[in-house]
Amino acid sequence: MGTCTFRASSEQALQRRATVLKDSGLGVGWRGGDLGKGNSYRFKSPDGHDMELVWDVEYAQVAPEDKSPLLNRPSKRPAQGIPVRRLDHVNLLCSNVTKNKDAFLDLLGFRLSEHIVAGDGSEIAAWTRVTSLAHDVAFMLDATGSRGRLHHVCYWYGYPQHLMDVADLFAENNITVEAGPGKHGISQANFLYCIEPGGNRVELFGDAGYLIFDPAWKPITWTEAELARGIIWIGSSLPAEFFRYGTPIVHESVGSVAAE
Amino acid sequence: MGTCTFRASSEQALQRRATVLKDSGLGVGWRGGDLGKGNSYRFKSPDGHDMELVWDVEYAQVAPEDKSPLLNRPSKRPAQGIPVRRLDHVNLLCSNVTKNKDAFLDLLGFRLSEHIVAGDGSEIAAWTRVTSLAHDVAFMLDATGSRGRLHHVCYWYGYPQHLMDVADLFAENNITVEAGPGKHGISQANFLYCIEPGGNRVELFGDAGYLIFDPAWKPITWTEAELARGIIWIGSSLPAEFFRYGTPIVHESVGSVAAE
Amino acid sequence: MGTCTFRASSEQALQRRATVLKDSGLGVGWRGGDLGKGNSYRFKSPDGHDMELVWDVEYAQVAPEDKSPLLNRPSKRPAQGIPVRRLDHVNLLCSNVTKNKDAFLDLLGFRLSEHIVAGDGSEIAAWTRVTSLAHDVAFMLDATGSRGRLHHVCYWYGYPQHLMDVADLFAENNITVEAGPGKHGISQANFLYCIEPGGNRVELFGDAGYLIFDPAWKPITWTEAELARGIIWIGSSLPAEFFRYGTPIVHESVGSVAAE
Amino acid sequence: MGTCTFRASSEQALQRRATVLKDSGLGVGWRGGDLGKGNSYRFKSPDGHDMELVWDVEYAQVAPEDKSPLLNRPSKRPAQGIPVRRLDHVNLLCSNVTKNKDAFLDLLGFRLSEHIVAGDGSEIAAWTRVTSLAHDVAFMLDATGSRGRLHHVCYWYGYPQHLMDVADLFAENNITVEAGPGKHGISQANFLYCIEPGGNRVELFGDAGYLIFDPAWKPITWTEAELARGIIWIGSSLPAEFFRYGTPIVHESVGSVAAE
Repeated sequence: MGTCTFRASSEQALQRRATVLKDSGLGVGWRGGDLGKGNSYRFKSPDGHDMELVWDVEYAQVAPEDKSPLLNRPSKRPAQGIPVRRLDHVNLLCSNVTKNKDAFLDLLGFRLSEHIVAGDGSEIAAWTRVTSLAHDVAFMLDATGSRGRLHHVCYWYGYPQHLMDVADLFAENNITVEAGPGKHGISQANFLYCIEPGGNRVELFGDAGYLIFDPAWKPITWTEAELARGIIWIGSSLPAEFFRYGTPIVHESVGSVAAE
Repeated sequence: MGTCTFRASSEQALQRRATVLKDSGLGVGWRGGDLGKGNSYRFKSPDGHDMELVWDVEYAQVAPEDKSPLLNRPSKRPAQGIPVRRLDHVNLLCSNVTKNKDAFLDLLGFRLSEHIVAGDGSEIAAWTRVTSLAHDVAFMLDATGSRGRLHHVCYWYGYPQHLMDVADLFAENNITVEAGPGKHGISQANFLYCIEPGGNRVELFGDAGYLIFDPAWKPITWTEAELARGIIWIGSSLPAEFFRYGTPIVHESVGSVAAE
Repeated sequence: MGTCTFRASSEQALQRRATVLKDSGLGVGWRGGDLGKGNSYRFKSPDGHDMELVWDVEYAQVAPEDKSPLLNRPSKRPAQGIPVRRLDHVNLLCSNVTKNKDAFLDLLGFRLSEHIVAGDGSEIAAWTRVTSLAHDVAFMLDATGSRGRLHHVCYWYGYPQHLMDVADLFAENNITVEAGPGKHGISQANFLYCIEPGGNRVELFGDAGYLIFDPAWKPITWTEAELARGIIWIGSSLPAEFFRYGTPIVHESVGSVAAE
Repeated sequence: MGTCTFRASSEQALQRRATVLKDSGLGVGWRGGDLGKGNSYRFKSPDGHDMELVWDVEYAQVAPEDKSPLLNRPSKRPAQGIPVRRLDHVNLLCSNVTKNKDAFLDLLGFRLSEHIVAGDGSEIAAWTRVTSLAHDVAFMLDATGSRGRLHHVCYWYGYPQHLMDVADLFAENNITVEAGPGKHGISQANFLYCIEPGGNRVELFGDAGYLIFDPAWKPITWTEAELARGIIWIGSSLPAEFFRYGTPIVHESVGSVAAE
């Protein structure tokens, strides 16, 4: 992951968040506009992931022949491949879940949807949101002890059949599928994980999961005893490397794996 | 429709909205707690639909045997019928779309997602939201000129197959399907309309439609020329009574229908 | 429709059917091998549709790069468009359903799966099979009184979502959809009808319908009273031209349509 | 498995098969009519599975209130659970696949659709058919060396969503899912395996797989090198017990399992 960019809800909101981030010690500073976006305020997660906030963005200019008669669709549905419909969320590996999650809750207005709490009270993973989605940003403990890595970014299809269709094309074309299709308990999402040619894990979502409209939502706490159902509600359990592999790749000694 | 209840995002938000509504002249007054909810502030839409705002609500108490191991699911999935998953939105017939829509935008913080504008500039319909859904409340012109009627309430399935499944059960059991399954352009929702035994129109949604995350979303304007695609993107056109039938039922003279 | 080709189940079967067809007076004669097939025995349906039977066929030669690791799949799944998976059936318009159907039953070993019988006892439509499909060849009364026309040919997708996907691409690209998606009662098939650029109607099937394994299957008889449910089990009723339009196109006078 | 009953295609076919089975040495003899069926000819597979052939069967009598207006549907779709639509196939564990498969091909007119051949030329599994289905009866090598066991019986849903729906109900109600949902390469079937309360493995099919209409179909041969894709085209690999567990259950010593 290079830089993870979030959009503020207004210019004023951007300024307010920049001040808060600066005061928190996580701020890095303003940066002039980049391709497709205006000034951004750069910061780091407690784990060191590079991030920025932006307000001004440039909307895609669509050629007349690519415009859709479906006016709320930015451009025509492509006839090639199984086209994703939008970005859904990002999942960050962390050396300390609570520190990173708390920064998003305290500094950026995220709310906690679900989390996994170990027997010793430590958080193993947390799913947070600023929209009606069950999560926009997730944090998972990096079992290798590394800092600042990416677990995955997720694109959204919205229809279960499209996960089967893309899995079919992956099988035809020798593209690695790490896990799925299956259904998570946490987020209730129909998922597929694959590894893109650059080595990053990409998740694809095949349904809407569940949405959170309750302004007084009480976060769901999963304990280790209940956890298996939370990770996989329908389908096979995830492979061991799901919990250790992230990017950039860290080379673990055999000993450290055996010690797990 | 008896009373349409909306939940405020906090106790303070409820108080602020009550003040705004009172000042607008649409306020009716506070009412003591009712079944499952605390104090509510009652008001009327400009068209006269009965409405209220509430903050305190009582959450469902689920018997131990109905609890789900899927902790974010309030109760076990029933094995009976094709169970809906949540309320989605309400659609109100209005004698004047703009007046009703503007009240929701100006007084209650709704935002406009899409609307239909006639050749003379008047609004025929409008879809508004306070969440990430493309609409929480829609307003449609009542072709009979009546005031304060309900067009439909919508429940959400989220999977296209479930619309086919429920339509199959409806066909088996002689339950009237008014239209669909099909797919709207506006909202991009996979829909089915049926009439419940009491005579109200109920919509059922079979997919997620599209969600709005853009804080600077520009409302989509459909003109009469483009409208057919907006109403039906996939499937047969809606029957004529879709645009006249609402509840309470008004008995139109043959003459007035012929004059249409 | 040029010529409709059926494959016999063996060389001997081809010879036996040729003899039977010749004796029936419907035979036209042998024809030397054509592109992709060996000798064929040509015949006409009672209505005059051109047909032939063949045994020897040339199988597709697939380039190595188009071979699939899924060995029972003749070639890789294309990544372009919404690819159909196989031909399903053909539907023939007839001036006399019974005569045409009986020829297929008596001379070619087809069996009757379902049919529609009018109040006067005449057959309006018939669905016949030689496989486990509910129909391989259907016959429908040509309301224009024409002879030997094609109603439609059907390709098979097998997944309901693929009908929605192709309908989405049709809507994007202004391709005419005549009816559907919906679900027939007769054959229980999830259908979509479109008109291909040459003017022929093409049906697309989105599920498996039902299969017939019962060697003593009693044909299903639909009367006019029950018929609406047989034609459409789920979805909107078919447009009037569905029952009159076929290829080649016949130009009806306004009077004849009005007389309907 | 008590007795596996197949229906002959006519009374004459039943008599012919009885003669052939008797001559083969696999015949057991005629048995008077049983519940819902007439006289049957009983026989054993080479492995000793109990089987019978029957012609006369009693069709279900449906109470008037359970009749469907969908005339080709034997009874109304139930509103309870996720109702299966028909039996699909049976899969038999065998001490010797070739012997059992050959008996079905030579004596009962089955045809070979696909099979797995080990490096030493021995068959590990075979899928055979008498209909257009890719298989009606499958044979798999019993890794425990046992004879005459059942691997699974399969019921058919036909829609992928129904596998997800039933898996959801299984998860809610603590019913064991052994594997899936996933998609086999062999048969191209969307599958789910569960264990019914009596201990038998039941497969559920969520799509149509592929059908075989080619009268000159060449059986597909999977080698061990290609096999993984044949067993699982989409989804996680099958658990080890899938290849050892069958009914009746055999209790393997730890040593024999370890020796595997």
